[in-house]
Amino acid sequence: MIPRFQLDEHSPTPLYRQLHDQIAQLIRRGGLPNGSRLPATRELAIQFGLNRTTVSAAYELLEAGGLIRGHVGRGSFVHYEGPLESAPVPTEETISFASSRPAAEHFPLAAFQQTCTEIITGPEAASILQLGTPAGYAPLRRWLIHQSQTEACMGPGDDLIVTNGCQHAIDLLQRMAAPAGSTVLVEDPVYHGLKNVFERAGVRLASIPVTDAGIDPVRLERAIAAEQPRLVILTPNFQNPTGATMPLASRHEIVRIIRAADVTLVENDIYGDLRYTGESLPTLRQLDGTGRTVLIRSFSKTAFPGLRVGWVIAPARIASELVDIRQWCDLHTDHLSQAILHRFAETGRLQDHLARVRTTGRERLRAVLDACARHLPEGSAFTRPEGGMNLWVTLPRGLDTTELLPRARRQGVTYLAGKNFSVSHYDPATLRLSFGSLSPDRIEAGIAILGRLFREELEQTGYINSRFDAAPALV
Amino acid sequence: MIPRFQLDEHSPTPLYRQLHDQIAQLIRRGGLPNGSRLPATRELAIQFGLNRTTVSAAYELLEAGGLIRGHVGRGSFVHYEGPLESAPVPTEETISFASSRPAAEHFPLAAFQQTCTEIITGPEAASILQLGTPAGYAPLRRWLIHQSQTEACMGPGDDLIVTNGCQHAIDLLQRMAAPAGSTVLVEDPVYHGLKNVFERAGVRLASIPVTDAGIDPVRLERAIAAEQPRLVILTPNFQNPTGATMPLASRHEIVRIIRAADVTLVENDIYGDLRYTGESLPTLRQLDGTGRTVLIRSFSKTAFPGLRVGWVIAPARIASELVDIRQWCDLHTDHLSQAILHRFAETGRLQDHLARVRTTGRERLRAVLDACARHLPEGSAFTRPEGGMNLWVTLPRGLDTTELLPRARRQGVTYLAGKNFSVSHYDPATLRLSFGSLSPDRIEAGIAILGRLFREELEQTGYINSRFDAAPALV
Repeated sequence: MIPRFQLDEHSPTPLYRQLHDQIAQLIRRGGLPNGSRLPATRELAIQFGLNRTTVSAAYELLEAGGLIRGHVGRGSFVHYEGPLESAPVPTEETISFASSRPAAEHFPLAAFQQTCTEIITGPEAASILQLGTPAGYAPLRRWLIHQSQTEACMGPGDDLIVTNGCQHAIDLLQRMAAPAGSTVLVEDPVYHGLKNVFERAGVRLASIPVTDAGIDPVRLERAIAAEQPRLVILTPNFQNPTGATMPLASRHEIVRIIRAADVTLVENDIYGDLRYTGESLPTLRQLDGTGRTVLIRSFSKTAFPGLRVGWVIAPARIASELVDIRQWCDLHTDHLSQAILHRFAETGRLQDHLARVRTTGRERLRAVLDACARHLPEGSAFTRPEGGMNLWVTLPRGLDTTELLPRARRQGVTYLAGKNFSVSHYDPATLRLSFGSLSPDRIEAGIAILGRLFREELEQTGYINSRFDAAPALV
Repeated sequence: MIPRFQLDEHSPTPLYRQLHDQIAQLIRRGGLPNGSRLPATRELAIQFGLNRTTVSAAYELLEAGGLIRGHVGRGSFVHYEGPLESAPVPTEETISFASSRPAAEHFPLAAFQQTCTEIITGPEAASILQLGTPAGYAPLRRWLIHQSQTEACMGPGDDLIVTNGCQHAIDLLQRMAAPAGSTVLVEDPVYHGLKNVFERAGVRLASIPVTDAGIDPVRLERAIAAEQPRLVILTPNFQNPTGATMPLASRHEIVRIIRAADVTLVENDIYGDLRYTGESLPTLRQLDGTGRTVLIRSFSKTAFPGLRVGWVIAPARIASELVDIRQWCDLHTDHLSQAILHRFAETGRLQDHLARVRTTGRERLRAVLDACARHLPEGSAFTRPEGGMNLWVTLPRGLDTTELLPRARRQGVTYLAGKNFSVSHYDPATLRLSFGSLSPDRIEAGIAILGRLFREELEQTGYINSRFDAAPALV
């Protein structure tokens, strides 16, 4: 498979030459063994947003250099007879703000080992290794149902199914409720994994802009009336990518609107347990007594993302359809991880771990806010999350975070540009900073590098941060 | 959720009364708590293949008996104020030939515990708990690639991706290659999990009949020409449900046909490692040097079905598309199980376990063949598998295995009727016997019960096992 190349449109080296150099390097280092078929030029052009002639020119150069061979009608194949080169050892690891995940160094390994040992030596071990049921491992389901009922997230007309994390829940909901050609209403910007599921399935996404206070209920009401969506998907707590939290008044208003419109609301609450400051607020599902809300939760941000276990609470009719789809998707969620996470939660170890995660999360959030205030160029804005792992930055107008990313990478820092998360509206000056897996020191160091890069760019381009859009006059 | 009811169309008790009795019992035993919403009559009717008036009559009776309450426009809800009854303790567990899975009592628990402990206390533990990559846990992928290259199942133009078992691989392949309205060519009868994936997605299934020697290559060639399928899916080893194995000559011929037609072949080899008798044969992928074959394998029949790990070997272009789809399906396969199965395989423990599985499998296969020969009524036919977990029975004409199933269940034996596996052609006298999880004693006891039931039924109906179809004359 071809990795993502880092091409710089502003470099004096033409794009086809940059592409050639990177593929050639990959071949010389053994990353593409002899006989590997290169993607068709059209395919590669689409994948990297390049002109097809750029890709063709790069392939011609590779062929001229004796690194690949073209076969009419079959494509181009790697053919390199020289010695394999080794990659240079990086001096220091990249500071990555690109992935919304917890810190591996804070995983409670001893508690995990203890839990795992109890499970594999316990009386249920053989039944855990045997085929399970699509709805989930019964002891875990019972425990989650009991917890959800206690928290008033689940009523007598509801049911619960275990999924392979939240991404899987979103995928199942698409397959159940949103066929190609239908419309789904989401936040903008929104988690790219959510956007991708629907776009790949040919679903039309309508959107409502997210501010620091979540979405505006008035716009939600208007959008539902105008778009008649199959699903409305909202993230009231610490939204990915903005980190925004909806205030209580909005939540009440949203539930009123959803009830009146009789539409199914999907509440993505994957970050809900990671509140660092401010007061805990009820979920939309808790406020909605009518069974129109589907709640998605997961262990992957609070415990271990490598164990793929999440769950969905929904009206029994919806839960039953989801189980049916999930059965033919992959039979059931991995049993061992379900059993381990059940015990981890049931013994109180998850709560102990969560207390520590919240403490370190609070420090990291403070570090990222301080560093942004200190290092980002004047005219930048950023959200003030109360929890979660993500923060949204809007740089002064004129900066393009997609263009700047290759340069940031070369300086040892990476992030995701706003482009990845945009639905209808796209501001090229935006980016997401995911701070969950970085220590306060690394956060400070990384944002200092980014701030310097952004300021240099502003000075070089001499862009005047005008308040007027370069738009034609309204006539 | 409503469980599957056992309704007997031939009972003197009318169906609506049987349905009422079973729902009432469920409510009185607390299986449906107060406030649970019953499925809509239409929904339940479709689910169980009943007439809607049958379901309505059962609901009316439940309401009259004070067990449920109907609310106009909202449906029927459980409302029971009496004491909860307890279920009778079954005197002996059901002998189930219904599930194609290994025997839990033969799981090598000590070796599994040892493997698991090595992983969770090893240097990779923290990285296993962290977010992984869509293509699979790198050490497992490397090991599988090395093994596959050694076995000549994988060439330089191929790649490998890890899935949540074979069912998941089939689902991903549907999503990649077979949109609604397209045609896929499969065996008939075929694994119901495969049939369901495509039928649910609106894909048209064309089929080729399977005999004891697999499919007839001549019919394959004709069907490809006539149907122009997106995919051809075949199971050369110990096919589910028939247990059939394709002889070497057929395999060569199939590969020649696939090459000439330039169609993508999916080779489902989930049972391939479970050969009990006869000589090992090359896979279609080994015979096909052109990269048109996608090979699906899994640990779930050879090791532990509760750990959901399988893999797909495919031309790099297809593998790359599959990774892309899988990323947005559920990010990646559970890391812990991937790491455990990698170590279990790498240390040789899987091979040791497989040797024992083959020994017990051989005993079970012999037991099921002996018992079928001894107990099935005269005029029955059954396949002679050389491996796997399934055997296909065709009873004398006139018997209907779907109709007989409730009676078999009441006598403590269960199986899956042929109906579940049929694609174009359906013979009501067929059934699948899955023998992998039953001891030779239980196999013998279960088939004795089935044989008696089938013979009684034949005597009662007095059906003459005529060789002529009751079809109209050809005019």
